[in-house]
Amino acid sequence: MTTTAQPFKRILVANRGEIAVRIIRACRELGVETVQVYSDADRDSLAVRLADRAVCIGPPRSSQSYLNAEFIVSAALIHQADAIHPGYGFLSENAHFAGLCEREGVTFIGPSARVISLMGDKAMARRMAEEAGVPTTPGSAGKLDGVAQARAVAAELGYPVILKAAAGGGGRGMRIVWSENDIATQYTDAAREAKAAFNDDSIYIEKYLRAIRHIEIQVLSDGENVLHLGERDCSIQRRNQKLLEESPSAVLDDTVRTQIGEAAVRLCKHVGYKSAGTIECILDGSTGRFYFMEMNTRVQVEHPVSELVTGIDIVKEQIRIAQGTPLTLAQSDIHLSGHAIECRINAEDPDNGFAPCPGTIQNFHAPGGPGIRIDSHVYTGYRIPPYYDSLLAKVIAWGHNREEALARMHRAISEMRIDGVKTTLPFHLALLRNAQFRRGDVHTKFVEDVLLEAK
Amino acid sequence: MTTTAQPFKRILVANRGEIAVRIIRACRELGVETVQVYSDADRDSLAVRLADRAVCIGPPRSSQSYLNAEFIVSAALIHQADAIHPGYGFLSENAHFAGLCEREGVTFIGPSARVISLMGDKAMARRMAEEAGVPTTPGSAGKLDGVAQARAVAAELGYPVILKAAAGGGGRGMRIVWSENDIATQYTDAAREAKAAFNDDSIYIEKYLRAIRHIEIQVLSDGENVLHLGERDCSIQRRNQKLLEESPSAVLDDTVRTQIGEAAVRLCKHVGYKSAGTIECILDGSTGRFYFMEMNTRVQVEHPVSELVTGIDIVKEQIRIAQGTPLTLAQSDIHLSGHAIECRINAEDPDNGFAPCPGTIQNFHAPGGPGIRIDSHVYTGYRIPPYYDSLLAKVIAWGHNREEALARMHRAISEMRIDGVKTTLPFHLALLRNAQFRRGDVHTKFVEDVLLEAK
Repeated sequence: MTTTAQPFKRILVANRGEIAVRIIRACRELGVETVQVYSDADRDSLAVRLADRAVCIGPPRSSQSYLNAEFIVSAALIHQADAIHPGYGFLSENAHFAGLCEREGVTFIGPSARVISLMGDKAMARRMAEEAGVPTTPGSAGKLDGVAQARAVAAELGYPVILKAAAGGGGRGMRIVWSENDIATQYTDAAREAKAAFNDDSIYIEKYLRAIRHIEIQVLSDGENVLHLGERDCSIQRRNQKLLEESPSAVLDDTVRTQIGEAAVRLCKHVGYKSAGTIECILDGSTGRFYFMEMNTRVQVEHPVSELVTGIDIVKEQIRIAQGTPLTLAQSDIHLSGHAIECRINAEDPDNGFAPCPGTIQNFHAPGGPGIRIDSHVYTGYRIPPYYDSLLAKVIAWGHNREEALARMHRAISEMRIDGVKTTLPFHLALLRNAQFRRGDVHTKFVEDVLLEAK
Repeated sequence: MTTTAQPFKRILVANRGEIAVRIIRACRELGVETVQVYSDADRDSLAVRLADRAVCIGPPRSSQSYLNAEFIVSAALIHQADAIHPGYGFLSENAHFAGLCEREGVTFIGPSARVISLMGDKAMARRMAEEAGVPTTPGSAGKLDGVAQARAVAAELGYPVILKAAAGGGGRGMRIVWSENDIATQYTDAAREAKAAFNDDSIYIEKYLRAIRHIEIQVLSDGENVLHLGERDCSIQRRNQKLLEESPSAVLDDTVRTQIGEAAVRLCKHVGYKSAGTIECILDGSTGRFYFMEMNTRVQVEHPVSELVTGIDIVKEQIRIAQGTPLTLAQSDIHLSGHAIECRINAEDPDNGFAPCPGTIQNFHAPGGPGIRIDSHVYTGYRIPPYYDSLLAKVIAWGHNREEALARMHRAISEMRIDGVKTTLPFHLALLRNAQFRRGDVHTKFVEDVLLEAK
């Protein structure tokens, strides 16, 4: 492959919050101009202040602004942007949007519409994984054709099982079934919820594994060269929402790390993946086996931990790949150095079921010093709009080893000041002081079943 | 050497500003309690807020507070601190203070009083360098005994020459002499100024080299094992005050890097150095030769750039060494990875001769994102006292190479907001955009003779 890439001159940022700031920073460092789209609620956002140009695309509701594919593509055409970076959430995994960009001649910074569509269908993604020789959890080969088939497959797998919406994500259309008595009701419920959320009532079934860890592999592919950048352990979750992520995992050995990494690369090659992406797996703590869960065909919130241990700027690489610049790295150039942890600081009240707390930030003081990186879009005086997610800042700590990274994170979180709204800072302090977490002995239900129960 | 070290339980921080915060952070990460001393002017400082305990030691004037050795040692004894960290400036290179600590049984975090005294005498330090086989600039072997000797040595060296106060630093008692006509007057002036500043009129003489670079080597020694952590290029100065530092130097090749590093190690071994320290050298751009200038027997403002390229936490190592923990690293473990740059953001007006601008910071917003580290003690609402140095924040950028580090620094400085006082942010933006600086083609007079002249 030869470098015939034409560098982008201008990129439209089709997102908000910290990831919009992250993308603008990458563009600045690459010498690329930025156009920031914003809703009426984000007029005073940091992204709007930092971008070279900003254009209002509608009222606060996402459906009328950040999810309006046609408006966003029009803005890109009007402002002569060569490309659109979708960030995460919103339109980032929307095949229609990617296709619209392709048709209008604006580069979508991500994989092709075909691949987004393929991997966005959970049952299809599972089949792709199987074809690529990536282990999947025992379960139905594809979508179920009704309650009867669900009952038969569940009997074969053994209870508990989990029903999942084929089109879905984020826990919607998902049901854990503990015994045969409940399968009919739960199936009907799941299908109804899936229909409402995704306009698709297709359901598939998997063996439900307990005490599992969420392990995901960061990949980078220019279409020819596919690299894996090690894993992230995202087992610290509450209701399937990640709260803290780290790399490397405290429990993965080099053999399994290589196996998962190579499996991720095989899957990317099999589907013709090109961009940054993440293969999410579950690791069965009792057997040490891993299983493919799903693929995220976009940059993730937790990408900085991989950046800190590999030294690679994932967002810049994503942009370079989209403009046609081949990766200059080989797998043998990638080494995980030290340990990185990210805490998501949300405007939520941990003492009140993590309810969102919009409001005005009276004082924002970020920690600093050695090994600390802050990715945030907030500032003193910032009014948090009630329309979007509650992420305020990501604090990312690097250390030579997990112990040093934990020590740095603990002192950084202790230093941080966010006045005016309730935040998850106290939750993170409690987590960082928990002995079981410090030992690395956690699973995806640790926060709900152990940490919050102990209070 | 066996590890029989008793970890410190409590450290007194005998400094203020960003370095006090830096020391407290290191202590936090090591699990060591902190006692912060402060003057009346620093009651609301971040260091006071972050420390476990804080104790007022007197009025704003340094001579009555931060320079009061007896008060500070008393505070350490009263609060049962095992050790005192002196930071930089103030008492950090005061042999009397180090000796007082030694006598009172409080560990001084730095080298012995004997070594401070030895290396604090510029003529003695020069002799030590010569004994250790470290090149020194052509000049008088030691202190001059008067104008006649100065004239004789200068004639031998050839003009221009530079007269320096043996006891001094910071440019005081220093005179460049361009011809024999001026030697008598300049000698008398330098001696008078040296007497006033340091109560010692001893003067020595050196060949004055032009278009030189300031290159310094960071060392770490536990008394047995002496390591060098590569160089810092601090050629960007104004009136001998460093403004921007980087590691590695844009011009040093591996052969010279190894030579300077080994020379620094020889000198440390020769004088029995134990702690973190810096060997400052000048590099003659025209010949590629380096010469010993002086040794700083303390941590330096610019230590973070070495931390970012080596991954070593210099302040934590300094503390560990002082408590008797041997270094666990060998020279072969130390690799310079990527490139780091530090900009010193001062409360000064670059358009008015860099005059200090104390005042209240109405808004402080630090940059973040990949590769950016902030070391600062200021916050929104902070009142800058007029009594001390004008450093507000250090912005440190890391990149795979100098180009990426420069790009990150440029975008970070562009993002940074400090409202309410004049700062050197615009100066740094101009510097970072200067083509000659970007090529790495600079010397210690570049700022005064090229950059500021061009305006």
